Amino acid sequence: MSPAPDIRIPLDVPPEEQERYRENFRKITHGTGRLMLFAGDQKIEHLNDDFFGEGIHPEDADPEHLFRIASRARIGVFATQLGMIARYGEDYRDVPYLVKLNSKTHLVGTSQRDPLSSELHNVGQVVDLRDRTGLSILGVGYTVYLGSEYEPMMLYQAAQLINHAHANGLITVLWMYPRGKAVKDERDPHLVAGAAGVAATLGSDFAKVNPPKKGGTIDAALLKEAAAAAGRTGAVCAGGAHASVPEFLQQLHDQIHLGGMVGNATGRNIHQRSLDEAVRFCNAISAITLDDASVDEAMKIYEGGR
Amino acid sequence: MSPAPDIRIPLDVPPEEQERYRENFRKITHGTGRLMLFAGDQKIEHLNDDFFGEGIHPEDADPEHLFRIASRARIGVFATQLGMIARYGEDYRDVPYLVKLNSKTHLVGTSQRDPLSSELHNVGQVVDLRDRTGLSILGVGYTVYLGSEYEPMMLYQAAQLINHAHANGLITVLWMYPRGKAVKDERDPHLVAGAAGVAATLGSDFAKVNPPKKGGTIDAALLKEAAAAAGRTGAVCAGGAHASVPEFLQQLHDQIHLGGMVGNATGRNIHQRSLDEAVRFCNAISAITLDDASVDEAMKIYEGGR
Amino acid sequence: MSPAPDIRIPLDVPPEEQERYRENFRKITHGTGRLMLFAGDQKIEHLNDDFFGEGIHPEDADPEHLFRIASRARIGVFATQLGMIARYGEDYRDVPYLVKLNSKTHLVGTSQRDPLSSELHNVGQVVDLRDRTGLSILGVGYTVYLGSEYEPMMLYQAAQLINHAHANGLITVLWMYPRGKAVKDERDPHLVAGAAGVAATLGSDFAKVNPPKKGGTIDAALLKEAAAAAGRTGAVCAGGAHASVPEFLQQLHDQIHLGGMVGNATGRNIHQRSLDEAVRFCNAISAITLDDASVDEAMKIYEGGR
Amino acid sequence: MSPAPDIRIPLDVPPEEQERYRENFRKITHGTGRLMLFAGDQKIEHLNDDFFGEGIHPEDADPEHLFRIASRARIGVFATQLGMIARYGEDYRDVPYLVKLNSKTHLVGTSQRDPLSSELHNVGQVVDLRDRTGLSILGVGYTVYLGSEYEPMMLYQAAQLINHAHANGLITVLWMYPRGKAVKDERDPHLVAGAAGVAATLGSDFAKVNPPKKGGTIDAALLKEAAAAAGRTGAVCAGGAHASVPEFLQQLHDQIHLGGMVGNATGRNIHQRSLDEAVRFCNAISAITLDDASVDEAMKIYEGGR
Amino acid sequence: MSPAPDIRIPLDVPPEEQERYRENFRKITHGTGRLMLFAGDQKIEHLNDDFFGEGIHPEDADPEHLFRIASRARIGVFATQLGMIARYGEDYRDVPYLVKLNSKTHLVGTSQRDPLSSELHNVGQVVDLRDRTGLSILGVGYTVYLGSEYEPMMLYQAAQLINHAHANGLITVLWMYPRGKAVKDERDPHLVAGAAGVAATLGSDFAKVNPPKKGGTIDAALLKEAAAAAGRTGAVCAGGAHASVPEFLQQLHDQIHLGGMVGNATGRNIHQRSLDEAVRFCNAISAITLDDASVDEAMKIYEGGR
Repeated sequence: MSPAPDIRIPLDVPPEEQERYRENFRKITHGTGRLMLFAGDQKIEHLNDDFFGEGIHPEDADPEHLFRIASRARIGVFATQLGMIARYGEDYRDVPYLVKLNSKTHLVGTSQRDPLSSELHNVGQVVDLRDRTGLSILGVGYTVYLGSEYEPMMLYQAAQLINHAHANGLITVLWMYPRGKAVKDERDPHLVAGAAGVAATLGSDFAKVNPPKKGGTIDAALLKEAAAAAGRTGAVCAGGAHASVPEFLQQLHDQIHLGGMVGNATGRNIHQRSLDEAVRFCNAISAITLDDASVDEAMKIYEGGR
Repeated sequence: MSPAPDIRIPLDVPPEEQERYRENFRKITHGTGRLMLFAGDQKIEHLNDDFFGEGIHPEDADPEHLFRIASRARIGVFATQLGMIARYGEDYRDVPYLVKLNSKTHLVGTSQRDPLSSELHNVGQVVDLRDRTGLSILGVGYTVYLGSEYEPMMLYQAAQLINHAHANGLITVLWMYPRGKAVKDERDPHLVAGAAGVAATLGSDFAKVNPPKKGGTIDAALLKEAAAAAGRTGAVCAGGAHASVPEFLQQLHDQIHLGGMVGNATGRNIHQRSLDEAVRFCNAISAITLDDASVDEAMKIYEGGR
Repeated sequence: MSPAPDIRIPLDVPPEEQERYRENFRKITHGTGRLMLFAGDQKIEHLNDDFFGEGIHPEDADPEHLFRIASRARIGVFATQLGMIARYGEDYRDVPYLVKLNSKTHLVGTSQRDPLSSELHNVGQVVDLRDRTGLSILGVGYTVYLGSEYEPMMLYQAAQLINHAHANGLITVLWMYPRGKAVKDERDPHLVAGAAGVAATLGSDFAKVNPPKKGGTIDAALLKEAAAAAGRTGAVCAGGAHASVPEFLQQLHDQIHLGGMVGNATGRNIHQRSLDEAVRFCNAISAITLDDASVDEAMKIYEGGR
Repeated sequence: MSPAPDIRIPLDVPPEEQERYRENFRKITHGTGRLMLFAGDQKIEHLNDDFFGEGIHPEDADPEHLFRIASRARIGVFATQLGMIARYGEDYRDVPYLVKLNSKTHLVGTSQRDPLSSELHNVGQVVDLRDRTGLSILGVGYTVYLGSEYEPMMLYQAAQLINHAHANGLITVLWMYPRGKAVKDERDPHLVAGAAGVAATLGSDFAKVNPPKKGGTIDAALLKEAAAAAGRTGAVCAGGAHASVPEFLQQLHDQIHLGGMVGNATGRNIHQRSLDEAVRFCNAISAITLDDASVDEAMKIYEGGR
Repeated sequence: MSPAPDIRIPLDVPPEEQERYRENFRKITHGTGRLMLFAGDQKIEHLNDDFFGEGIHPEDADPEHLFRIASRARIGVFATQLGMIARYGEDYRDVPYLVKLNSKTHLVGTSQRDPLSSELHNVGQVVDLRDRTGLSILGVGYTVYLGSEYEPMMLYQAAQLINHAHANGLITVLWMYPRGKAVKDERDPHLVAGAAGVAATLGSDFAKVNPPKKGGTIDAALLKEAAAAAGRTGAVCAGGAHASVPEFLQQLHDQIHLGGMVGNATGRNIHQRSLDEAVRFCNAISAITLDDASVDEAMKIYEGGR
């Protein structure tokens, strides 16, 4: 395969890993520069809340559901913890993986103690697994809670992780969430833009931000400041929670075309559905993200198969 | 011995350790996939409360009682600290061991400070002991207090421990206990399921959970959510405390056949009895766990010898 | 190029790095011993506040604006984080860089918790990047919050960083800011002088201090105590915020000629302007700093091109 | 010298160190399995309170007093800090040493902050000193404050220290003291037994416990639970403070013959006397501990010399 | 030069460093066993308070003043931070140096938070500088705040520093200061003696203590307890602050001849004077310390030149 000349390789990727980085970037974006990240890392953060209960398809109770979706749907990358990949990866060798390197439960609330999500594994362990098994591990991810009293530790781990990931040709995604007693409005557009800018200073390839609100209303145009602040770091957005399918797809379309996002990271909106529906929904999201499909075109994919 | 083809070896076990992992898994489960763990690690957590006092057989006052039981009874594995194994192991070379790698006393209550149980030894020290002495050390164990303010440290140590244990062919068991000021109901079935799911994301082979309650009542069917959430990680359960023998065995039977558990972890219910009775009780538990014996069959073993 | 004989090389620079240190010092000061540092590290500290909003030129919304200025204007060095340099450096190879090694957001206020700004990257990673890419990375920077409860950690990281930087021929700049619940008046001239003195004991090449005030008034002569206390460490000063251009340049001139400063560190006063104006303003600052230009001469540069 | 066949060597002592361990154990117990530990490590814990003041012989003001006693009296081992041994050891090469590896002052009370006594030196430094100087360093010691909020750190250091000490053929003694805001009654016999049991799980050779009390009364029989809980770890006891000599010796005799202790650890009761008296008192204690002397026999030694 | 046979070399100095240790000890004490330490490390602890202001000679505003004094006066050793030595050492190669390895500012008061002064550099960095530059670096120093909640960390760093310093032939000086919320009277003679004793247990060559007071009065005889408690560690004392010259010299004379001190550590009393006067005062102090001069003889040196 000829190298994609338009991929900018950051300087912390050494020459011997540049071809791998370029390939990983091409694969994770399907050659489009856009990212469709299927988030399957919430079994720690949300415990079983996202996987079992009213309104959740029973198939979601089994962790393998995530792998089945990731294997059958068109995605950029499937984000989950190293332990899950070690356990299921052999049976799902076709899935492109991103290893989420930190996680914490939601049990301790911010009013009790500011959030700290600390590294579970290091990049070296990810690289070992990749090189030994030949799995398609394309990148690593990490959540930073800006404004937490533990921010210094997370900024350090994030900066180091990016340096080590790039040194090994891996793509990086930072989840940039302002959170803590000092954070009055996590969804403030200016603060969300600041969070995207921090990811840029750390040199991440992608930054996931939450959709900003103004006066309680989500408006994709509010993302423009964040898209600019992120610079050459690609900003992606979480889809709206509990929206109807057309609303969700419209928001996603707006985030990209009005807000300047280069993709999305979506989890429970996908996996809480049956395998069949989840795959169709995933494919609809990918059509908008990767093919510049319209919302109507995406709805047809959701409703009918490809 | 021919390899058991139905054992799934996780990908963090490197090729040169896969045969050992398979053997360890076969031994620890007696080839059944089910785990009977005899827990003898409470001399730190409960100090002498479980070993001396009213209702406890005087033989339990001596730590060697645990080894005598482990040596004579049919168990999957005997869990205790490295220091104990170093002291008694030479005289009990036939016992299959699991090294419990963290422990703390119960002196500091949750209302004073959230629980932190930190590593005492590392996997490297366990491997050194195993390789040098030839003892049958099959695995390692670790307790995670989810919802504690120290959760990040324990999640990190657990994740690392599993990675290192698998790298050396050892089986892992996580004790998954929600505990801390933020945890309102440790026995909530949904929370217990979440805890089992966390063990799955960390890639543990087994997860011990406490039996969930709803409205104050234990019901083995409540475990089904946890069994599902654990995915390919085998969930095992603690027996009920202070139950009569038939009740205990019935609960264990239900946990397996109604709740989907793949075994049990039992400590004081065994060792607080005389050696003879403890061995018979252990064997009864193993019959249910490993042989799918009925409660009646198990009671006969308890009452009469094998 | 012949060595500049008047550059004192500190003894923690080993012989094999002395020529590089001398060259770096000569480049960073344009052979004048004076430093014009263009500060572009605030995207973490101030999030997007300095880059987007009323009174800020829209070009500043894109991080590349900083690199464009640094590339076209006459500066001593451009300070920013490693991740930014890794992302943009290939396109701006002519820029002299200083890697700011620590940063934190301003979200957690001092009344909530004393400031801690911890290392993001280490000197080894900077040296790797320099040696591999051939970028003109001349030095490293670090902020110390004296009087914070976390002062011991920052003093340690600063001392170590200087030792490692000098061992690799790099120039060091410390941002010396008294801050924390224990600090009543950050701008007290005596305290500012003390902060400069601490940088001297740590062996830094340069120390940036904030302009002291007495009775609410800034007076460049108040800097004389700090200039003396800094000894052979060169003290530089931040320009006044939100001053008019002539006022700003007059203050800078006074800081050097009345206050004994050997340069300045200026950020938002430069980059919040359009590229063209920012370049002219930068050049005016450099004329005063590096050429001993008068304020009038500098104003002409600002108004008309060189 | 022929090996003493009745010494059980723990499995964490590697083959190449087993002969040394056996020899050290034989020496430290004079071949009896009993330990007479002369404690001279209180200059940190009690500052100068134990060494100067009313009722203390003036000779005790000089630290060398401790070495003079250790050199002339019959003891199992003299416990003190590494720095003291480095300073005086050359002149007292005949003394058997145990290096106390942690210590703290008593200045910060439990009501202010729970106790933390952290490692001063590591086992590697002890081994270096032993191997280079040929001093008779037989073992290492460490204090664990169970029930302190810092218990996890001390349990970790203790476990590691035992592992490293045994790896180098050294004998270990743990001072097991329940202490902290959570500990209501440090002398509760059941709690003291629990503390002894923890030392057993950590694999220590000896555990020093404080004499338990019930209803305010010391009764050596209360130690039986601790002796049992310690298993193969030898439990030793501190003598009563400020008792008369006959009372002290009677208590020691009872602790061994009624309480099941395998020795004693005595400090100020010895060194607060003149050199001559301290030596005689030491010898009396050793007679009871090592020779099964009666209290009357021991009193004769104390009163007259051997 | 023939070895001084009366220097006791501690056992943590390995054979290959014993000659260097002996030489360093001889130099630092001018062959007398007494120490005259010129303290120039307060630019961190006291910021600029000791160097600029009313009653302080203007020459003291420049850090080089300290080096000029150290170079021209007769001293045992000049204590300052590594960064200062790196910056000025080349021009003051004749000065005997002691590197003060920890320091903190006085900004955070004890009522806000107990003091922690943490290592800035390690012994390895000192040894590198010494060996590469050939500077006369004779020793290292460290402050321990006994009774601080951070005491465990400082005791650890001090113990390690002594071990590493001795391993490299360096002399050690500990500043032993009881300080923290738990310390009611820092000058209590019994507590000061305890602090000296702790330095002995850590194996330091010298311990600096503050002059004790009883009922608010300083009396050199109160030091006798500390001199005894220090054992083979040499106790030295700080001179009284703001005393007249004759008073200061009398106190120093008394500390040595009545209190048993083996020297002094003096800072601002020296450097707050003009270079000429500082040199004369220094020489007067050295005459008492090193030559057993009387106060009158010392006064003549102070008043007139050598």
